[in-house]
Amino acid sequence: MAFDFTSVISSRAAATANRWNGYPPYHFVGGNIDEQTIPVDELADAVDRVIRSEGHSMGKYGLENGPLGYLPLRQFIVENLKSRASMDVSAEDVLVTTGSLQALDLVNELLLESGDAVVLEAANYGGTLTRLERLNVEAIGVELDDGGMRMDHLRQVMADLDRQGRKAKFIYTIPTIQNPTATILSRDRRLEMLDIARQFDVPIFEDDCYADLIWSGERPEAIQALDTDNRVLYCGSFSKTVAPALRVGYLVAPWAVMQHVLPLKTDAGSGALEQMVLAEYLPQKFDDHVDGLVRMLKLKADAMVEALNENFGATAEFSQPVGGIYIWVTLPEHVDTRDLAVAAAAEGIAINPGPEWTVYGEQNRHRMRLCFGHPSIEVIREGVAKLADVCHQQYGVPLRSGNVERV
Amino acid sequence: MAFDFTSVISSRAAATANRWNGYPPYHFVGGNIDEQTIPVDELADAVDRVIRSEGHSMGKYGLENGPLGYLPLRQFIVENLKSRASMDVSAEDVLVTTGSLQALDLVNELLLESGDAVVLEAANYGGTLTRLERLNVEAIGVELDDGGMRMDHLRQVMADLDRQGRKAKFIYTIPTIQNPTATILSRDRRLEMLDIARQFDVPIFEDDCYADLIWSGERPEAIQALDTDNRVLYCGSFSKTVAPALRVGYLVAPWAVMQHVLPLKTDAGSGALEQMVLAEYLPQKFDDHVDGLVRMLKLKADAMVEALNENFGATAEFSQPVGGIYIWVTLPEHVDTRDLAVAAAAEGIAINPGPEWTVYGEQNRHRMRLCFGHPSIEVIREGVAKLADVCHQQYGVPLRSGNVERV
Repeated sequence: MAFDFTSVISSRAAATANRWNGYPPYHFVGGNIDEQTIPVDELADAVDRVIRSEGHSMGKYGLENGPLGYLPLRQFIVENLKSRASMDVSAEDVLVTTGSLQALDLVNELLLESGDAVVLEAANYGGTLTRLERLNVEAIGVELDDGGMRMDHLRQVMADLDRQGRKAKFIYTIPTIQNPTATILSRDRRLEMLDIARQFDVPIFEDDCYADLIWSGERPEAIQALDTDNRVLYCGSFSKTVAPALRVGYLVAPWAVMQHVLPLKTDAGSGALEQMVLAEYLPQKFDDHVDGLVRMLKLKADAMVEALNENFGATAEFSQPVGGIYIWVTLPEHVDTRDLAVAAAAEGIAINPGPEWTVYGEQNRHRMRLCFGHPSIEVIREGVAKLADVCHQQYGVPLRSGNVERV
Repeated sequence: MAFDFTSVISSRAAATANRWNGYPPYHFVGGNIDEQTIPVDELADAVDRVIRSEGHSMGKYGLENGPLGYLPLRQFIVENLKSRASMDVSAEDVLVTTGSLQALDLVNELLLESGDAVVLEAANYGGTLTRLERLNVEAIGVELDDGGMRMDHLRQVMADLDRQGRKAKFIYTIPTIQNPTATILSRDRRLEMLDIARQFDVPIFEDDCYADLIWSGERPEAIQALDTDNRVLYCGSFSKTVAPALRVGYLVAPWAVMQHVLPLKTDAGSGALEQMVLAEYLPQKFDDHVDGLVRMLKLKADAMVEALNENFGATAEFSQPVGGIYIWVTLPEHVDTRDLAVAAAAEGIAINPGPEWTVYGEQNRHRMRLCFGHPSIEVIREGVAKLADVCHQQYGVPLRSGNVERV
């Protein structure tokens, strides 16, 4: 008789996955990117060179460079953060991680205990929200406007906590191409956030994973770069700029913090081949590659905006994207995107319902995130039109598609 | 003024790392392997082919194959486990993990809660012991002899728990080239372990990371293969057979378990390039590669045995290795290998003190683990001789080195 594992599974493991059935044809979720922009030949050339010259070093966990990761990659990260984000750090401040998600996990494990509070943009990356929930940490949302996190509201939230005799463990922010709102926090607001953090004596965790994907190419100075008191932990990624399936991200932290992070990274090192190929590829190619990638993403964003306008008209409200891979769409209040997502899935369309991407889910039941990085322009056009059909069937809106009134 | 992170660091993050200073010259720790056996040209050829033909799929997290990992690699794992370990599983039962350490973490998270007990070989992999300690799980050790875990003692341990009204969450075992004893559990004992697990109604977690490294090439049937009631979770790795710095391992579990594991794997997929290159390289080359690797490891084991005999004589007791990458050495009772390790480190020699590799540390203070997979034969000879010098200086033993009496 088969052993009954349900009798021994921990309370943390109650959730179940479904069998994998492939991607739906209209796949508007996930931080995936355009497949044609993956520089396969250049990556192949890079890996060929680096594996033949340095491949023997893979006989050791952590290669020759210790627990922080492959040194040439860390050196590139340092130079890249200098030129693009005005950050002045050294290779000793950089830990290569298995995707930036590992950086999130490490910082959470470093700082958070059950019952703690984290203050963050009220609409936020779903993976951050589920992580905080799993750790039994309260996520306290700060309102956003077109300029990103509102500093007046942040100050109020911090003051409210203070009046309760509480303090946030840290402020978590995605200041540049915020997920899901795609907003960019201005320099003034960044300085004000640092001022607020100083006033209330809390650190900031800056998640900058999307910062290279700005149409104008004008990436703002990182909050970390404006910080004068070593208050900011910072993470980034190559998932959005080279390939998500290459699991390479990084954490930037002063040694006083890093020395506590390293013992928590019990994975015997991040994947060496992926670090080596990026270190070989990026120094020569990164800037040109990102320029091409961003041009392609802008075409896709334009296609999605056009498709939304054509098929949803005034029913869908959103800001014109200035970068990134997603659009945060507000539908009429009577639409519940959790139900819409179920109906859309039946038609082969995947969307992120607003409640999964926000701290205060119920208030955002009529919002959704649509990702445009991976699908082709044709798929974007078809999928948004089909989504409008599904929405009309379920909620009677939109009333028109283009010039055609729906019946 | 710099922000004081010590005020916000969680109790879990109390440990601190030292700055990296490179490897010591005589590095007899860590599951590293011989650098010359890394098949760099063949890996380069494989990665070149697979990245040019399938590299575009890296635009998606998880490639095209969903959360279980790259399908061609899972298919190879299935065939390899069939031919080498007599296991009959399907690709749907295999989850590719970021090293087998991630499989340990996932199974621990799946099954363990604070206060639980796990029964395992009393001498064991340090990373398993520190994981259990961090989870506040009691590790209950079972004595080993030259045939691995003693089944009479396992039965007694389980019965003792039963009398206390307790039950182990699972039996964790490294049955083949046990770490650190390098013993191989016989088929009879494997069947008896299954019988005991059935009697006391507990699952088994079989860690088979070293199983391919047997000099004779005769790998025993996995416990998983002998199990008739889906009681065994199983993990393996390519770290020891291809390269440790490639972070690719796997977990084998029935879907009833796997459906609970997948939601715990929140890393957005394991590294795609490393999965792809292995899937391309392994089917044609694995068997020949392992044959060559094992021949080299046996030469190194022989060199270490010879060096131990020559420099330590009767002072060092150990079994003749039949495979693997480490020797478990017993020194006279008055030697404390924790202190020996400190003195040896000052001479550029790294060893694993017995207490870090055993459940009941104090009883094993005169034991140590010496790894021979990575250092060259020359380094092994020199390092063991130097270690004997250090040991003599500290503890007065060994009295002789070869035919020369020490003064």
